[in-house]
Amino acid sequence: MTERTREPSISDTPSPADEPGPGRRPVITRADIIAAALNLLGPTRSVSTLSLREVAREAGIAPNSFYRHFRDVDELAVALIDLAGQSLRQIIGVARQRAGSEPGVVQGCTDAFMEQLRADDRLLHILLRESTVGSAAFKRAAEQQMNFFEEELCIDLIRLAAEKNSGLYDPALTAKAITRLVFAMGATALDMPEEGRAELNRQIVGMVRMIIAGTQALAAKTPAEAHPS
Amino acid sequence: MTERTREPSISDTPSPADEPGPGRRPVITRADIIAAALNLLGPTRSVSTLSLREVAREAGIAPNSFYRHFRDVDELAVALIDLAGQSLRQIIGVARQRAGSEPGVVQGCTDAFMEQLRADDRLLHILLRESTVGSAAFKRAAEQQMNFFEEELCIDLIRLAAEKNSGLYDPALTAKAITRLVFAMGATALDMPEEGRAELNRQIVGMVRMIIAGTQALAAKTPAEAHPS
Repeated sequence: MTERTREPSISDTPSPADEPGPGRRPVITRADIIAAALNLLGPTRSVSTLSLREVAREAGIAPNSFYRHFRDVDELAVALIDLAGQSLRQIIGVARQRAGSEPGVVQGCTDAFMEQLRADDRLLHILLRESTVGSAAFKRAAEQQMNFFEEELCIDLIRLAAEKNSGLYDPALTAKAITRLVFAMGATALDMPEEGRAELNRQIVGMVRMIIAGTQALAAKTPAEAHPS
Repeated sequence: MTERTREPSISDTPSPADEPGPGRRPVITRADIIAAALNLLGPTRSVSTLSLREVAREAGIAPNSFYRHFRDVDELAVALIDLAGQSLRQIIGVARQRAGSEPGVVQGCTDAFMEQLRADDRLLHILLRESTVGSAAFKRAAEQQMNFFEEELCIDLIRLAAEKNSGLYDPALTAKAITRLVFAMGATALDMPEEGRAELNRQIVGMVRMIIAGTQALAAKTPAEAHPS
């Protein structure tokens, strides 16, 4: 139950009626099963290798109790990805608001992202590492989370471009390029010693600025009505 | 043995002395074990879930014979990644030479990359999907293959910029941004129906052009002596 602190967004705590009898495990929540799964995962262990039996054992429940919350391990994996996306978007959203407008926003969001990596957020690790492996449902869920990011970033890019009166060539493609690149670079951070991460932060900021300079340069070259957006 | 056709770069065919006796498997080669592993892998099956016993069974050998070629399954996984990187670099190298110089080179290399994806090259799938999961040795090998790509691309970018007399801001960072983004986008192609891939090809070409426009715009803004390259 000490894992609960990692999962502030999961609110289905047990009701008083769920109090354990002597020698029995308390009634388990979705959050407990998720925490047990996260416990089992590590830098070299993939979500796709989790077995229901093993997660149940880690959570201290009978395999049958697992089914009260998830249809199968795959549904648990999808829940992990959804949570990972939600939690990261929340963090980046706060960083964005704090940074206000360019030029601080790229550095601010990158710092927040790297900070979360450093905090050894296993949910984030799953999102970065595993979005391309696993079941079809799992990959669809990961793709969906990326798309949410891209849509939010796209709105932000349009707002910033309007504020600065700078061009934006294909905002959706620009947002997608930034999101996919930052996630790919973030995934490499996971295996990096602390001292390498400052350099990685510098590289990510440099790459994002390159893409923004590129979208502005292409917009300047292209007549407004020809923009593909 | 029919898998051999997929692996033209693996040349250690059995010698005549390896002819099988009646009812015995022929002496197995490294290539046969690699082919057996590739047979077992599919769109939702990760390299990290392969067991030595299972690969040996698929190859039709006793587990002990496996050790003549690989120390463990992890060494086999590293061999798969190395082969994947080599084979893709060869394909892109041919596309680059054929395209000659800008602007055809971005489209030419992207086409070659997507063509190879379409050919259902399982080695390429491993490189795209799994570079961030697996053992430390496996991830180091995947990172190494990416670095080879980036170095070759960096040389190409410098050559093209000199030809066109266009600027290049931090060539190494530009090469890294392009490589990581194309690989991340390529990974999403694997689960895509054929009709989505033309759009993906368009997106990849657009993103790479955006990065190139960006590196040129930043170079134009920055005094030559301040370039971080």
